[in-house]
Amino acid sequence: MTGFGYLTFLTDYGLDDGFVAACKGVAVRIAPAVQLIDITHMVQPGDVRRGAAVLAQTVGYLPPAVHVGVVDPGVGTTRRAIAVQAGHSILVGPDNGLLSWAVAAQGGATSAYQLTNGEMWLHPVSPTFHGRDIFMPVAAHLAADADLTAAGEEIDVAALVTLPAPERLVRDGTAEGEVLTVDRFGNVQLTITGSDAAAIGVTSGGAMLVRSGRHRLTLPYRDMFGAVAPGELVAYADSAGLVSIAVNGGDAAQRLGLPPGARVSIAAAPPTIRR
Amino acid sequence: MTGFGYLTFLTDYGLDDGFVAACKGVAVRIAPAVQLIDITHMVQPGDVRRGAAVLAQTVGYLPPAVHVGVVDPGVGTTRRAIAVQAGHSILVGPDNGLLSWAVAAQGGATSAYQLTNGEMWLHPVSPTFHGRDIFMPVAAHLAADADLTAAGEEIDVAALVTLPAPERLVRDGTAEGEVLTVDRFGNVQLTITGSDAAAIGVTSGGAMLVRSGRHRLTLPYRDMFGAVAPGELVAYADSAGLVSIAVNGGDAAQRLGLPPGARVSIAAAPPTIRR
Amino acid sequence: MTGFGYLTFLTDYGLDDGFVAACKGVAVRIAPAVQLIDITHMVQPGDVRRGAAVLAQTVGYLPPAVHVGVVDPGVGTTRRAIAVQAGHSILVGPDNGLLSWAVAAQGGATSAYQLTNGEMWLHPVSPTFHGRDIFMPVAAHLAADADLTAAGEEIDVAALVTLPAPERLVRDGTAEGEVLTVDRFGNVQLTITGSDAAAIGVTSGGAMLVRSGRHRLTLPYRDMFGAVAPGELVAYADSAGLVSIAVNGGDAAQRLGLPPGARVSIAAAPPTIRR
Repeated sequence: MTGFGYLTFLTDYGLDDGFVAACKGVAVRIAPAVQLIDITHMVQPGDVRRGAAVLAQTVGYLPPAVHVGVVDPGVGTTRRAIAVQAGHSILVGPDNGLLSWAVAAQGGATSAYQLTNGEMWLHPVSPTFHGRDIFMPVAAHLAADADLTAAGEEIDVAALVTLPAPERLVRDGTAEGEVLTVDRFGNVQLTITGSDAAAIGVTSGGAMLVRSGRHRLTLPYRDMFGAVAPGELVAYADSAGLVSIAVNGGDAAQRLGLPPGARVSIAAAPPTIRR
Repeated sequence: MTGFGYLTFLTDYGLDDGFVAACKGVAVRIAPAVQLIDITHMVQPGDVRRGAAVLAQTVGYLPPAVHVGVVDPGVGTTRRAIAVQAGHSILVGPDNGLLSWAVAAQGGATSAYQLTNGEMWLHPVSPTFHGRDIFMPVAAHLAADADLTAAGEEIDVAALVTLPAPERLVRDGTAEGEVLTVDRFGNVQLTITGSDAAAIGVTSGGAMLVRSGRHRLTLPYRDMFGAVAPGELVAYADSAGLVSIAVNGGDAAQRLGLPPGARVSIAAAPPTIRR
Repeated sequence: MTGFGYLTFLTDYGLDDGFVAACKGVAVRIAPAVQLIDITHMVQPGDVRRGAAVLAQTVGYLPPAVHVGVVDPGVGTTRRAIAVQAGHSILVGPDNGLLSWAVAAQGGATSAYQLTNGEMWLHPVSPTFHGRDIFMPVAAHLAADADLTAAGEEIDVAALVTLPAPERLVRDGTAEGEVLTVDRFGNVQLTITGSDAAAIGVTSGGAMLVRSGRHRLTLPYRDMFGAVAPGELVAYADSAGLVSIAVNGGDAAQRLGLPPGARVSIAAAPPTIRR
């Protein structure tokens, strides 16, 4: 292995403290030639599922790299620290499912190692800051020149902790799923794909019946939120290929009260009259 | 053209999602040698005017670069995607006025192109994420080695969408304008320049009468907010050369209730006794 | 002196405006080969003490660099602008104590200079934006190739403004101190060190009596917050070696009402029965 030019970084550390910078300092001291790309550090504290979703939807656009993800409410406990080869990249982080969706998006794990080689760590190791003392130094060594096999003991890829795949079920002309994430704009991204929608007859230019709890809405299904007037609701397949609900120029999550995890089903509706 | 070493990036994407990182990943895969500088990603969603103001006030301090701006409520609609040569830089973004004040600050557009050359895009193009699929890949190609003329069809620079210049009028010893932006500190930046102030006899060490709606205030006009006691209001010409109102150590926008767009006029007032 | 490869940057400028980018633009125009590492820009406006704490706890993990810190409520007044040699790094910023804890963490100042050499500044100098016009251009020159002695007049290191060291006192089996900072997770970091705790018989696996105002709590003292059940309070020596109070998966500062500056004392308590 000849190393990677890039190291990417996703955490729930926030931007108020020096945590991210301490990790970066550790990285550049080990791997001065590597370039760092921040994915986000604003994952809600401990929200592994949210971190997994952002990582999985971003990693395909990044260059081959060592991707470090740290959303790690179990830091210092018995959860394992891992490095996983998937596609042309290596993912490093806690074995709590955070990396699992990104690994799947990269075509699945081809090998995995538990980070047991203390020679690659920064000592003394703080029991509460493995991002700085284990994950980042190991990742930097891997990015610089180390062979993945040097990181520790090989483990069975089938034994890696994986988050349940985002729930979705297509049957009887209905696609059922849930809210996967809400982005900065308040756009509500479902676990239902644009292909699912097509399979039940929901196509661009048509209309979509949305059910969630007692909510029942008929929305235009378009190519983009800009296809409806400002302030109007619209559904569309978003830039990750997932059915999303937006308000053009507004916040759909707030208007509809749809947080991550809310159950939603969609079906084709008769075309609305105005287009 | 031999390319640019820098690519700068301003959006309303926020920092919670992976949007910015996806764009950067696309950029470095096309132009590995280019260096990225973030301007801000915290423009309020869809606030084209705010984005235009930040870009225009920052661009003069950046090195020659391809500057990418994406505040694009009309993404996917008929608004054009453009690249504009101005000064030693190229500005890339939607043709909705976002770039217009920065273009003016760089001395005006010398040429402009509509981004119609799909060979420079990332496919498939999402109708809702042109930052990732059109603006950034085109910008990266331009930064790496492409000639601007390859980006698409040349368009008349006079036909570019421009935001109205920040409103200001000097007459009869009064300068009228509005609040252009409010910064993190709560400093209220007016569209009125320090030169306007000088022209109506408001000079450092003197006093300034401020009118806004029913508000009527007499403020000391100084070189810096630190010239008054903590907690006191003060007016000064800020680091962009614009008249601003601050509270030393406090938040003037909040205290005075002056949001962006509020109409304000200033005039010279008799010097206050204490200095 | 042959220059530094890195330039780090801590401010209270926030991320909403173009201030940080303007400074970075100034830096790369002077020192194109230098790499920039952001520490944080989210110090609360004017909170010198908070900035000093973050800088001091981060700087040891960064490579030798020119570290620029700007939390500068007195910008434009008579406070001095300084560059301080400490360890293998140079720290640049206002002489208001911001740099003092980091200088101490680096082993103390070996020399210091007042930034009086205007040839290293960006002109015209705004009286309210020395980050852009003085601190960053001087730092970039120092990082690129300039000798520290060129920055201005040497000053006595004993005359540098220093913040009082974080208050802590160990006596009669009690360690008294205060809340130094609260991080993004709501973890409450005290000025009391893990060594102080050990000296009064508080050791991992035992229990700790905490007093603050009328609060009186007995907390398990563990190696990490993950050692207690989710939702439970715990004390531990954190990644900076300081005693901290956390809620596993929650926000201790909020739950206990302990802001920075609150007085706290700790003592050993009989071990709790459950472990």
